[in-house]
Amino acid sequence: MKCEILAVGTEILLGDIVNTNAQYIAKRLSDIGIFVYHQSVVGDNPERLKEAYDLAFTRADLVITTGGLGPTKDDLTKEIAFEYFGKTSVLHEESFKYIEEVFRKSNRTVSVSNKKQAFFPSDAIVLKNNNGTAPGCIIEEGDKVLVMLPGPPREMKPMFEESVIPYLKKFSKEILVSKVLRVIGIGESAAADMLGDLLDNENPTVAPYAKEGEVTFRVTAKASNEEEAKALIAPIEAKVREILGDNVYGEGNTCLEEVLGQLLTEKGLTIATAESCTGGMVAARLINYGGISASFLEGAVTYSNDAKISRLGVKEETLKEYGAVSHEVAEEMAIGICKTSGAHIGLSTTGIAGPGGGTKEKPVGLVYIGLCYGGEVVTRELNLSGDRQKIRQRATITILDMLRRELLSSK
Amino acid sequence: MKCEILAVGTEILLGDIVNTNAQYIAKRLSDIGIFVYHQSVVGDNPERLKEAYDLAFTRADLVITTGGLGPTKDDLTKEIAFEYFGKTSVLHEESFKYIEEVFRKSNRTVSVSNKKQAFFPSDAIVLKNNNGTAPGCIIEEGDKVLVMLPGPPREMKPMFEESVIPYLKKFSKEILVSKVLRVIGIGESAAADMLGDLLDNENPTVAPYAKEGEVTFRVTAKASNEEEAKALIAPIEAKVREILGDNVYGEGNTCLEEVLGQLLTEKGLTIATAESCTGGMVAARLINYGGISASFLEGAVTYSNDAKISRLGVKEETLKEYGAVSHEVAEEMAIGICKTSGAHIGLSTTGIAGPGGGTKEKPVGLVYIGLCYGGEVVTRELNLSGDRQKIRQRATITILDMLRRELLSSK
Repeated sequence: MKCEILAVGTEILLGDIVNTNAQYIAKRLSDIGIFVYHQSVVGDNPERLKEAYDLAFTRADLVITTGGLGPTKDDLTKEIAFEYFGKTSVLHEESFKYIEEVFRKSNRTVSVSNKKQAFFPSDAIVLKNNNGTAPGCIIEEGDKVLVMLPGPPREMKPMFEESVIPYLKKFSKEILVSKVLRVIGIGESAAADMLGDLLDNENPTVAPYAKEGEVTFRVTAKASNEEEAKALIAPIEAKVREILGDNVYGEGNTCLEEVLGQLLTEKGLTIATAESCTGGMVAARLINYGGISASFLEGAVTYSNDAKISRLGVKEETLKEYGAVSHEVAEEMAIGICKTSGAHIGLSTTGIAGPGGGTKEKPVGLVYIGLCYGGEVVTRELNLSGDRQKIRQRATITILDMLRRELLSSK
Repeated sequence: MKCEILAVGTEILLGDIVNTNAQYIAKRLSDIGIFVYHQSVVGDNPERLKEAYDLAFTRADLVITTGGLGPTKDDLTKEIAFEYFGKTSVLHEESFKYIEEVFRKSNRTVSVSNKKQAFFPSDAIVLKNNNGTAPGCIIEEGDKVLVMLPGPPREMKPMFEESVIPYLKKFSKEILVSKVLRVIGIGESAAADMLGDLLDNENPTVAPYAKEGEVTFRVTAKASNEEEAKALIAPIEAKVREILGDNVYGEGNTCLEEVLGQLLTEKGLTIATAESCTGGMVAARLINYGGISASFLEGAVTYSNDAKISRLGVKEETLKEYGAVSHEVAEEMAIGICKTSGAHIGLSTTGIAGPGGGTKEKPVGLVYIGLCYGGEVVTRELNLSGDRQKIRQRATITILDMLRRELLSSK
């Protein structure tokens, strides 16, 4: 069954609101094995709305609309649809009683325009709106199905879950099961090159997606039941994991800080951070994970040289000889935070995030990161591109990944 | 000029991501008087993509695509467009050099698939991507224009502002001039209520937009030239400023940290932070502003009680008697960071960000913030809603706004 999602509303075309409904519906349809081939947005304009129905039904069997069920003259989604299918509409008593009830509760009287919301063809399936006055509806015409839902997400979502999902299940013969693998420390194109032909596999499919310094690969199998789908996924997942090795850091919605928090807890290790250019971002990311309190002792944002000296015991000579942005200072910062906090592991960052402050020898984007653990220190030089924000975010992700790899390799 | 926005990407059809690009582009086009009649989404599928171009150009003069410019085989937006227009593409040397440069900086080598990103027809206008490797491009064919932009918003937005908006201005006869006023410390609906009828004004229009704890009001005038537009904006801007008072903290793209950095520098004041629940976010926000180095001395992320005692001199008895999440501890933290860092101003946060750790007396969302300046300390109790992330972000914004008001009121 091919589906198209059609959002109706001039406010979306003007960019006043983001069309989050399309994402929500698409995701839930994909969960039950109905694939969306097109999403469209059209304004509250009778002609273009009619054209949109016409187009949608030439390329889809199921069309789901959102928006335009309100009481004003602008709201035309239903009216034009009924016209398109040549149906006349009559007052749906139950819906009207419900609307009256809602108005009585808030001490308002029902206007003529509100009454319009309760008109439907007699053979329509009317969908109750428990969170507003606009009922939705389903029209079946031959092998075509039109589902019309209200626009506000807080009305649309419950109606979709309560009425539409149960209705649609009869159309989904096959189900789609996905597994997401999360990858860090390697770019999208490099990872894709490594996976090669796997990305052309048909069932399951393997699709890459890059986001904020990470890459995810979604393995999606089509099958008649969940067990079968999982059996299809397993060997492909194993291949992806074998090829990408420990660049794969997690599955599904697991975020990097969760993986780190769990590794630290399992190993009974404590951690502290000493940040210059990232200025608190590394600590803030670690503390994103609620369970970190047992492991995270403290962080020092030693932005000035004075703070590096007084808080971390970085030597004045080291700062003079090598400069604050150097392997040597990153090393002393990592050792210093370990010593002063008593943590097992110390992380450090020092770099030039720009826009100013770069020189020929030390350009914007040059960052040193350090990790001290068990008396040993490793430092790394990074040459990052992007604006100030991006350089700091990339340095943060890189040191967190460095920590992950250290925790995995240590016994 | 009729415009259609076409997003390309199976990840949108599957509902993995929300198509925020369409909203952004639509809004900005509306600012310059170009109206969007359709928004569509199509997957990374050659046939359907070709159909989508065909359809878009029958109903629009300007088609703007987002996504599908990546290095993998999945990324087809450009290739199918060139085919659609019957154009052959050649290596665009400048783009390729830039890609090589980006890769060299991060010690990676350019793969064959990355090279594909630098191929364009010789008559295309190539748009440089300062935040990624995929250049965009503009194809002009008769009276039709195709603009192709990368999918990631952090790449798309700057490219749109820097290259596309200036290009498109030639198509809009009337000019629209906007001025954005940035507001903090007051919610969107409260601010809108205060402005009342001003929001119904026709020229200039005044449009609110809420985002991440802030509200912006965009004042947009339509006129035949910039001078005229500015003359229309001035009296309305004055009214908005009069009504909202010092809740207006800046204009245009000025961010809060920039305002704070400038105020601190002007007044020759230094600052240090002591964070518990926000875990580095306050420091990280302050350090977003490149010019902060003269003012920001250091930050302490004292997540554990031990760190609060050893780093900041918070008294053990205070922690025992009032608990770590209290006015008293926020006060001692703010004083402590001032003393140990020698900064003029000390900021502190301590709270329960959840998901665990809440009690009846001290529920999740309870946060105390403190500000110490000139020997005086002010603390505030916040009761915040949302998830762990949101509670921490809201606490961060609130203390930064507290600092702003303090800096404005002090001589």
